[in-house]
Amino acid sequence: MSDWSVTDHKFMSRAVQIAWQGLYTTAPNPRVGCVLVKDGEQIAEGYHRKAGEGHAEVNALRSAAERAKGCTAYVTLEPCSHFGKTPPCADGLINAGVSEVVVGMVDPNPQVSGKGVRKLEQAGIKVRTGLMEAQCRELNPGFIKRMVTGMPFVRLKMAASLDGRTAMASGESKWITGPMARQDVQRLRARSSAIVSGVGSVIKDDSALTVRESELGLENATEVVARQPLRVILDSSGRMPEQAKMLRLPGETLIVSCVDAPAFIADIEQAEWLKLPGQHGGINLQELLKALALRDCNEVLIETGATLAGAFIEEGLVDELVLYQAMKLLGSRARPMFLLPLDNMSEQINFTLRDSRALGDDLRLTLIPRQEKH
Amino acid sequence: MSDWSVTDHKFMSRAVQIAWQGLYTTAPNPRVGCVLVKDGEQIAEGYHRKAGEGHAEVNALRSAAERAKGCTAYVTLEPCSHFGKTPPCADGLINAGVSEVVVGMVDPNPQVSGKGVRKLEQAGIKVRTGLMEAQCRELNPGFIKRMVTGMPFVRLKMAASLDGRTAMASGESKWITGPMARQDVQRLRARSSAIVSGVGSVIKDDSALTVRESELGLENATEVVARQPLRVILDSSGRMPEQAKMLRLPGETLIVSCVDAPAFIADIEQAEWLKLPGQHGGINLQELLKALALRDCNEVLIETGATLAGAFIEEGLVDELVLYQAMKLLGSRARPMFLLPLDNMSEQINFTLRDSRALGDDLRLTLIPRQEKH
Repeated sequence: MSDWSVTDHKFMSRAVQIAWQGLYTTAPNPRVGCVLVKDGEQIAEGYHRKAGEGHAEVNALRSAAERAKGCTAYVTLEPCSHFGKTPPCADGLINAGVSEVVVGMVDPNPQVSGKGVRKLEQAGIKVRTGLMEAQCRELNPGFIKRMVTGMPFVRLKMAASLDGRTAMASGESKWITGPMARQDVQRLRARSSAIVSGVGSVIKDDSALTVRESELGLENATEVVARQPLRVILDSSGRMPEQAKMLRLPGETLIVSCVDAPAFIADIEQAEWLKLPGQHGGINLQELLKALALRDCNEVLIETGATLAGAFIEEGLVDELVLYQAMKLLGSRARPMFLLPLDNMSEQINFTLRDSRALGDDLRLTLIPRQEKH
Repeated sequence: MSDWSVTDHKFMSRAVQIAWQGLYTTAPNPRVGCVLVKDGEQIAEGYHRKAGEGHAEVNALRSAAERAKGCTAYVTLEPCSHFGKTPPCADGLINAGVSEVVVGMVDPNPQVSGKGVRKLEQAGIKVRTGLMEAQCRELNPGFIKRMVTGMPFVRLKMAASLDGRTAMASGESKWITGPMARQDVQRLRARSSAIVSGVGSVIKDDSALTVRESELGLENATEVVARQPLRVILDSSGRMPEQAKMLRLPGETLIVSCVDAPAFIADIEQAEWLKLPGQHGGINLQELLKALALRDCNEVLIETGATLAGAFIEEGLVDELVLYQAMKLLGSRARPMFLLPLDNMSEQINFTLRDSRALGDDLRLTLIPRQEKH
């Protein structure tokens, strides 16, 4: 364990800050930031923007050029030691003559974790690890969970009234929350690798589940929507309509079913049919998430009705609940947030509140389940 | 309209601050603070502590004694001009030789509003009114509403889970919220003139509805519990058990019913029976509130189950909803917050969030209905 100076914190803070610029674009790669420092002054910085493009270290080294020699590099994530789409960043740092590397968190992948650090040390570079690790971890909940467990990070989004209702008994629900909350949902979609929904909303609303450039309110919205999250439609009995507009929208649609694909699917380039085992009359959700992790999904957003949402909660598969709470009552006939049949207080499902903030007239609560039930 | 200086705000702020010290003890009187200022320096202050004891101005003048001559008095509420339990404060200020009076808000009672100001002006005292009026009004929502409308200020308290449930289907509900939220409820009770509940909880739990000294966490807790809020039990069909412990606890119990009192009531000194007209199979709630205002109730706290709470909401009788929200799910079989049969989004009941804060693991939301439906 190192003793960290105020200066260390200052530069790692900056590395974390610029890493967030990749929030919507790096998937399936992690968000990483790098700051190069010489004689106590920052001389260059870089972040990973997009899979296939330069890693954070490479971008920073390129900007520093000759000045990199003898500098200290602050990196939010352990530099990679292996060839992927780009050469190993550890080699880049060694070749540039960097004298010291400060790492926020080591690589979460048990198969390569620590190898980048060792490679640097073997080249005579001083390495310190663990500075602002919590902040560095927060950048990549999905990438970390997938590397460690082979499962994606599951975020369940729900919009409800104060009395916990999501729609009137008739199904009417436009709009429970205001424009700022809806923009925020667009951003949740944009940061996700996949969005999971039920076929019911496709049949009823011909829903799109896309990230819409005009609704993001982001400077780099054009670049963001160039990568559409995978649309995952749970359709256990194979009811997906042939004419559903979603099937032909930019990005890809994965229909997950317990039955075989209908013939029309083969003709649609952006649509894929995945047959999975069933469970309790629906898809086996654990198998679903495993399949998404194998497709390199880091963060998965669940946008479903009460039944599916309740099943994810009940099976302990939710890592984060994002609740948009409208300051209104919809009454006791309206639809519940979760179909969740509990009988005793001892079965209650507890959360820790991570964040609470106002979005226009609504509140957004970010909640973490207290006990993992995996 | 006066132009207010920074100094004016400073002294009125102090007057407001000390007025809050009477929060739990002044009922049925308003909470009032007074600061006396001479040559730009505060020379004395006083607040109203308890009905029958000195008003804020009197307490401040007593503390200033001879020095009061030629000073400026900052008072949160217009000084009274009439004899009540104590002589008029306007006379006190005149006799003390005060040269200027700055008033936060004029008396809300239309029958006396402005009379204190006129009396002071007729005595040659300069008077300015309306400084920090919003803050001064906030001290006395109940007193103001009662004076203006003849109805008390109605605060509805509810403790619920994120999915809007107050108890399991079995009735089990201990404890939804944590100790800090429960302490806060004790303080809501303590500031109220009356607490309204249904006879059901008396029958089921032999509830007390008292303010408990040990649970308040207040320095002046002993003094606070010396005034117990009136316990108001809605008992339309006359089911109040003779042995209910509440009937013999410190403070008074008012049983409101559509039927005549049983014989045992006459033998219990602290119990009163009030017969009121019925409505929809229960008590006429409008009539109930009128009756409480006639008993000098300023702030009334509603602590009931879903049916009565829903009726108060539906009839537009709630001025403030205080929602203690526990970060948990109780599931879709659990009991709803309000029995409130709405069918269309257009019937939704909207609130403005006035305050949101964490109390231990719980959130407390303070909400004001958007449209009054009186």
